[in-house]
Amino acid sequence: MNPNPTKRRLFNKAPKSSQLVEQEERRSDLGFGTKLTDSSSRLVNQNGTINIARVNGTLWDRLNIYNRLITMSWVHFFFWLLAAYVFTNTLFAGIYMLADARTLIGIDDKILNGPFWKCFFFSSQTLTTVGYGHISPNSFLTSSIAAFESMIGLLAFALATGLLYGRFSRPVAHIRFSRQSVFAPYLDVNAWMFRLINTRDNQLVNLEITVSMSRLEPKPDGTLYRRYYGLNLERNKVAFFPANWTLVHPITEKSPLYGCTPEELEQSDAEFLISLQALDDTFVQSVHTRFSYRYDEILWGHKFRPIYIDDQQTKIDLNKLDETEEVELN
Amino acid sequence: MNPNPTKRRLFNKAPKSSQLVEQEERRSDLGFGTKLTDSSSRLVNQNGTINIARVNGTLWDRLNIYNRLITMSWVHFFFWLLAAYVFTNTLFAGIYMLADARTLIGIDDKILNGPFWKCFFFSSQTLTTVGYGHISPNSFLTSSIAAFESMIGLLAFALATGLLYGRFSRPVAHIRFSRQSVFAPYLDVNAWMFRLINTRDNQLVNLEITVSMSRLEPKPDGTLYRRYYGLNLERNKVAFFPANWTLVHPITEKSPLYGCTPEELEQSDAEFLISLQALDDTFVQSVHTRFSYRYDEILWGHKFRPIYIDDQQTKIDLNKLDETEEVELN
Amino acid sequence: MNPNPTKRRLFNKAPKSSQLVEQEERRSDLGFGTKLTDSSSRLVNQNGTINIARVNGTLWDRLNIYNRLITMSWVHFFFWLLAAYVFTNTLFAGIYMLADARTLIGIDDKILNGPFWKCFFFSSQTLTTVGYGHISPNSFLTSSIAAFESMIGLLAFALATGLLYGRFSRPVAHIRFSRQSVFAPYLDVNAWMFRLINTRDNQLVNLEITVSMSRLEPKPDGTLYRRYYGLNLERNKVAFFPANWTLVHPITEKSPLYGCTPEELEQSDAEFLISLQALDDTFVQSVHTRFSYRYDEILWGHKFRPIYIDDQQTKIDLNKLDETEEVELN
Amino acid sequence: MNPNPTKRRLFNKAPKSSQLVEQEERRSDLGFGTKLTDSSSRLVNQNGTINIARVNGTLWDRLNIYNRLITMSWVHFFFWLLAAYVFTNTLFAGIYMLADARTLIGIDDKILNGPFWKCFFFSSQTLTTVGYGHISPNSFLTSSIAAFESMIGLLAFALATGLLYGRFSRPVAHIRFSRQSVFAPYLDVNAWMFRLINTRDNQLVNLEITVSMSRLEPKPDGTLYRRYYGLNLERNKVAFFPANWTLVHPITEKSPLYGCTPEELEQSDAEFLISLQALDDTFVQSVHTRFSYRYDEILWGHKFRPIYIDDQQTKIDLNKLDETEEVELN
Repeated sequence: MNPNPTKRRLFNKAPKSSQLVEQEERRSDLGFGTKLTDSSSRLVNQNGTINIARVNGTLWDRLNIYNRLITMSWVHFFFWLLAAYVFTNTLFAGIYMLADARTLIGIDDKILNGPFWKCFFFSSQTLTTVGYGHISPNSFLTSSIAAFESMIGLLAFALATGLLYGRFSRPVAHIRFSRQSVFAPYLDVNAWMFRLINTRDNQLVNLEITVSMSRLEPKPDGTLYRRYYGLNLERNKVAFFPANWTLVHPITEKSPLYGCTPEELEQSDAEFLISLQALDDTFVQSVHTRFSYRYDEILWGHKFRPIYIDDQQTKIDLNKLDETEEVELN
Repeated sequence: MNPNPTKRRLFNKAPKSSQLVEQEERRSDLGFGTKLTDSSSRLVNQNGTINIARVNGTLWDRLNIYNRLITMSWVHFFFWLLAAYVFTNTLFAGIYMLADARTLIGIDDKILNGPFWKCFFFSSQTLTTVGYGHISPNSFLTSSIAAFESMIGLLAFALATGLLYGRFSRPVAHIRFSRQSVFAPYLDVNAWMFRLINTRDNQLVNLEITVSMSRLEPKPDGTLYRRYYGLNLERNKVAFFPANWTLVHPITEKSPLYGCTPEELEQSDAEFLISLQALDDTFVQSVHTRFSYRYDEILWGHKFRPIYIDDQQTKIDLNKLDETEEVELN
Repeated sequence: MNPNPTKRRLFNKAPKSSQLVEQEERRSDLGFGTKLTDSSSRLVNQNGTINIARVNGTLWDRLNIYNRLITMSWVHFFFWLLAAYVFTNTLFAGIYMLADARTLIGIDDKILNGPFWKCFFFSSQTLTTVGYGHISPNSFLTSSIAAFESMIGLLAFALATGLLYGRFSRPVAHIRFSRQSVFAPYLDVNAWMFRLINTRDNQLVNLEITVSMSRLEPKPDGTLYRRYYGLNLERNKVAFFPANWTLVHPITEKSPLYGCTPEELEQSDAEFLISLQALDDTFVQSVHTRFSYRYDEILWGHKFRPIYIDDQQTKIDLNKLDETEEVELN
Repeated sequence: MNPNPTKRRLFNKAPKSSQLVEQEERRSDLGFGTKLTDSSSRLVNQNGTINIARVNGTLWDRLNIYNRLITMSWVHFFFWLLAAYVFTNTLFAGIYMLADARTLIGIDDKILNGPFWKCFFFSSQTLTTVGYGHISPNSFLTSSIAAFESMIGLLAFALATGLLYGRFSRPVAHIRFSRQSVFAPYLDVNAWMFRLINTRDNQLVNLEITVSMSRLEPKPDGTLYRRYYGLNLERNKVAFFPANWTLVHPITEKSPLYGCTPEELEQSDAEFLISLQALDDTFVQSVHTRFSYRYDEILWGHKFRPIYIDDQQTKIDLNKLDETEEVELN
């Protein structure tokens, strides 16, 4: 996407070039820098991650094992646990076969479909320390391997214990943002709005939200650069978050969105970056989350419909989070 | 409870309608909003939870398993653990029965009241990895099931380990609020007071308390809305919390309670919202708690009696927390 | 200790009685209150706990099990673990005896000194899930008890896991305060000083210390009350805490210690309350600790000797922490 | 390194001797003090530790077991685990030999290379609670030892569980600093710069960096003392840390580096101390790290080359972190 004459006239404020202004702007760029002019991807993904790829990291850094095991889905997590269990047993079964399967005595190989499976089940009984004893090591070598395997087994399950606890106790805000943000009338002006709900019964307190807008703007020489604006919210803090909250950025003359058209937002690759921080009261854990709306996730002339059920003020229907209706803008 | 002419005259300050004032008020509504005019329920329950119901959450969100298992009582917790243990053993006993109970060898079925119970006890010995071996799997199929079950068993107890640790290490303020708050004389005015004690030997430091009052007030058009006031405390922070603390809101002319009668508090569905934050010194954990007093939890013309035992200044009788005596108001 | 005429004249500043002053003073009383006039005990013990006893707490609150098990010494901890292990095995041995010791088969009673010890060892093998199987339950009843015991065993050791982790990971500042504080010359005045060392290789950063002095002072009517003063330190924050730090309160005209004699400090039951907060860098844990010096833990006309070894600026001898030498005061 | 006439003239600002200035300077010495004039060692090592040795600590403090086991490398950690496992089994094997190896029955000694190894393997089966039962204790004494050993075993592996979890969940910033810092042109002046990258996919937010310079300066009487300066950064905070960040200290007239030559930096034993703090978003953990550049880790007249791959702004090559190219200084 190259700069073109049309776009250069889009913005009513002429880009300033003084170094002071430049430094001031860098303060609000959140760390992304002004050179990200590729409009094919967003800065912040809707799951809160950032769009940066790393090359040539060390294997250890790339694997980032603990982090992955903690953040992957439960289905994946149990799949990998089971896979590791089967793999380890297969590995040790192979080692017992090499050592001498005949020294694992107490049961007839044929009953368990041959010596490999006898070794496999003996391995599983050793790894989990269940140790029935109907198969037992009857030589120095297999006894040694079994002594080592039982230690490995305990460590592996020690690790699983830590991972399960880490997954459960990890501070995650169970917050859902509305899929679309809206431009709706607000008092005697218009406003850009989005809303969010707490999907769980956990008490969230001391919520605080900051919103920035990022868009491409042309420099005097015609090259594009990415500029960032902090957006003022009608309210950016609440002490309690009973259930839902609509965030409102009124589009007054001071707003960078003042006089903006949907086409301009698209041409300038506009993205709204949201950063939320709160306190989960159950464990008094701080929870952080990020979200973003791009220009194509805005409904113009829509407003959110009430989320309460039949005027019962203390009953909230989570399914109504995304419900909007058309409304005439001011 | 509908607005009526009498109530509209209750408050000496006329409700203001300017948008500026409205925004200012929203700052102090704590996130509850001004539309909660249903006076049949309180905003904050005395256990610190908030009175909001959710509908249509996902099953996962509604179960909120970890949170529940952490916050339920110990009796419930152990009941569910035992229930899960019996259920899992019954399930696996059924599976062994399907596979072929006769391949679990080593003991006569009759001694254990038939093949089901043999399977059940074998399952329990596998799940807990005790594995005596006097019952042992003697086929490929039952060996496989047992290998899987022992893995599940270890994971389940890994989970239990995490849950037990989570329950114990969860930051909870062992603070008890007096059941009633009082209106008592204070210096040359009156004051609304409540007190609290630290029921445990844990050191709590850096306590900070904020108190808000919420009540229904009529708008100029007669409809009711909920208004919130921050209440000034004679003191809202202490560095140490040796044992007890009486919080005092003096009712000066600036107080929203100035000139209020018990009847007015009831008619306006008044509720006092208390938010406490402190540092538990044992684990240097931040602890948060909430509490609320409604209009019917206030004793007019009562004062708290000393909580010390026989003038021994360093001995506190926790049973005296709620003791008050009548006193004439200023 | 009753007020007497001599003491009333001790302090050059007349106690003020205005309510404003009283409220201001309450701000600096740290939460102890002004009524603790019993001079037989200190406010803060040197291990950081506070001198308050509770009466009539619930059993659960009084036991405060988790807190005790976490904070007791390692010797006590292992003693209680072992005691619990022996007690539980004895209990279950009794239960197996009641059920019928003869149904635990596989070994001759006589070899293990009779049926009770057979039951005891079977219990220990079940509780720890070692389950050799050379003793095994051979009836429905003993099998059921064993199934229950093995579950209890796993939970108990799950608990032990959590306790061990809790003990190790608990944030504790390994800081040692000098046993005595000193009054030593400082620049052209005198100063009250104490020092502290980091006894471990853990990096402590962002240390911050606050010091208060508390003493009894007479009111105009002759009754004693406890007054608190914040003491200004020449420096109360450091970003790094390489090894040792001497804290200095210069006794200028503004200091409440100005013109004080050792006898006056004793008569007024003076106590210096120290509160320290830092960040342990290994786990990025906040650590808090308290300490106090009473009037009889001050050396007048002493100064601390260097703690470095033979002028090697980067080698610190922890044994020299308490070394002082006499010096003439200004 | 003794003060010499040449060095005394090095600095254009005369050292001031007023006590006020001295106190002001102590504020910025970070806690190191001004007496560390030994130029053979750095203050802060590049792994973030501080150069201080302790003598005469208690054994417990010197071992600092938990801290070491948590911070040592994984290879060392597993080596020590294995060593402890073999040692404990050897110890208990010896105890069983003393008690009477013949009472461990069920297998022929010769198969396992004699009674010691029989005891050793029985010990390992007891310690890990695998308990096959093909070796079992057949006397009161060995049964008692085994009951004790199985308890010890469970505790030891409980400890290992905690250690593994502690190692994994410990907050560590996976940040790599450029090996060299550079002096490069910046706008119309020069600047001292370094850069850093986030080597993992963990989201780091709210980064904040402070930089100090420390160097030896002569007092009027010719003795050297260590002086500290805070360095102003063009920017010291970012809300997001997508991947890389170049820190810039512009050398204006106010900078203590103004007019400095490489020789002067070397003669004054200059060291740049960096302290970084951020929030790891996965566990919402605060992470802290320190780094330092000495005078011999500065490249004069070099600038960093871009770290992006082929102008793809969202792809970062971690190997390019240290790449610089020569450039003419202003």
